[in-house]
Amino acid sequence: MTNDGPVPAGPGVDWDPADHRDRADLVEAARRLMSAVALTDVPPDELRRVTEQLDRLTGRLTIATRPRCLRFPLPTAGFQGRVRGSADPVLGLFNPIAVPLTPTIGADGTARGTVTLGPLFEGPPELVHGGYSALLMDGIMGTLVRALGINAMTGTLTLRYLAPTPLDRPLELSARAVSREGRKTTIEGRITADGRPTVLGTGIFVSPTGATPERPSPTRP
Amino acid sequence: MTNDGPVPAGPGVDWDPADHRDRADLVEAARRLMSAVALTDVPPDELRRVTEQLDRLTGRLTIATRPRCLRFPLPTAGFQGRVRGSADPVLGLFNPIAVPLTPTIGADGTARGTVTLGPLFEGPPELVHGGYSALLMDGIMGTLVRALGINAMTGTLTLRYLAPTPLDRPLELSARAVSREGRKTTIEGRITADGRPTVLGTGIFVSPTGATPERPSPTRP
Repeated sequence: MTNDGPVPAGPGVDWDPADHRDRADLVEAARRLMSAVALTDVPPDELRRVTEQLDRLTGRLTIATRPRCLRFPLPTAGFQGRVRGSADPVLGLFNPIAVPLTPTIGADGTARGTVTLGPLFEGPPELVHGGYSALLMDGIMGTLVRALGINAMTGTLTLRYLAPTPLDRPLELSARAVSREGRKTTIEGRITADGRPTVLGTGIFVSPTGATPERPSPTRP
Repeated sequence: MTNDGPVPAGPGVDWDPADHRDRADLVEAARRLMSAVALTDVPPDELRRVTEQLDRLTGRLTIATRPRCLRFPLPTAGFQGRVRGSADPVLGLFNPIAVPLTPTIGADGTARGTVTLGPLFEGPPELVHGGYSALLMDGIMGTLVRALGINAMTGTLTLRYLAPTPLDRPLELSARAVSREGRKTTIEGRITADGRPTVLGTGIFVSPTGATPERPSPTRP
């Protein structure tokens, strides 16, 4: 299976975003708009006119709504390939506040993804906001947990910020499972920029009492 | 000083968003649009038409742009009142991806704020995504650090998820300084829903070498 080809439907595999192209295009347009809103320098009159027209478009979209964001089945145990969170607010293809990142689960059981964050994500001057680094770490770790077929939520999250994380540079995110004991799965993650780790994270994900594990242990403990 | 009244300009105080009403209104409209995009259920034809018109509005806003998001001076040591991050991606009034939360620094040196997160922020069913809880914790802790007049970035962040954080319920965020030793300032924070803590956090914020502290210790260590 290549990373970019279509993925057949069924348990243990991902869904095909090509089936929802119009929605994905709209979400991408909303992301472009957000950047434009944050960086615009047009005169106040024009800001007011655009605001009015934006609200009109919002009105058209809310003529028919759903109570929750669109969701598709998550990959189950043993999945390899690209993981597309459907409406996930961190890595969701259909959620405009999500970061445009689609991690890949490799044959070695590691989740990896690359993302470049622009001015919208600036905390200290020319650096990514520390809270967004935390969000991304939890996002990629949680994605790996689900790709391992484990039903669990974040129990503890510990992050060490080793170096500033730059804006406008490709950030490589990775996560791997290090242990699974009873209801607790421990995941290590990192953010790397220009070949240098900027944030290291450890997450302990806890399964609900009585949850049936879909597999006894991660592929690569 | 009340929480809602105008705030005079000058060192140690906040800026007045009324001076930038048109921009704040546009950002609010962009937030409404994002929710509509995520929850819309209109037919594909209409999705395509709205996408096209959205891109036209983006084009109008990008006729004149700035390289970075708009920023205003942050409050300095001893500040009390509402803290409005200008373009901050976590709590920024002028950043559409930010959460609409404006924390208040009280006379006791504690930062507090309330926010309700809707379907856009859903992780597990009907719960706030754990990554967003991490983002909010870093956001309110970092806001307090700046309101104490301390120049520092997140060094370590440790979060314990005690209970699920519900969607569509008011979440109370708080942060207080517990110690300051050399370049390290330790902040404790929590998220409370329905009177019950859901996330506890400890952040160690580290000042750059040679940074001149604006005050020797937090107001309430």
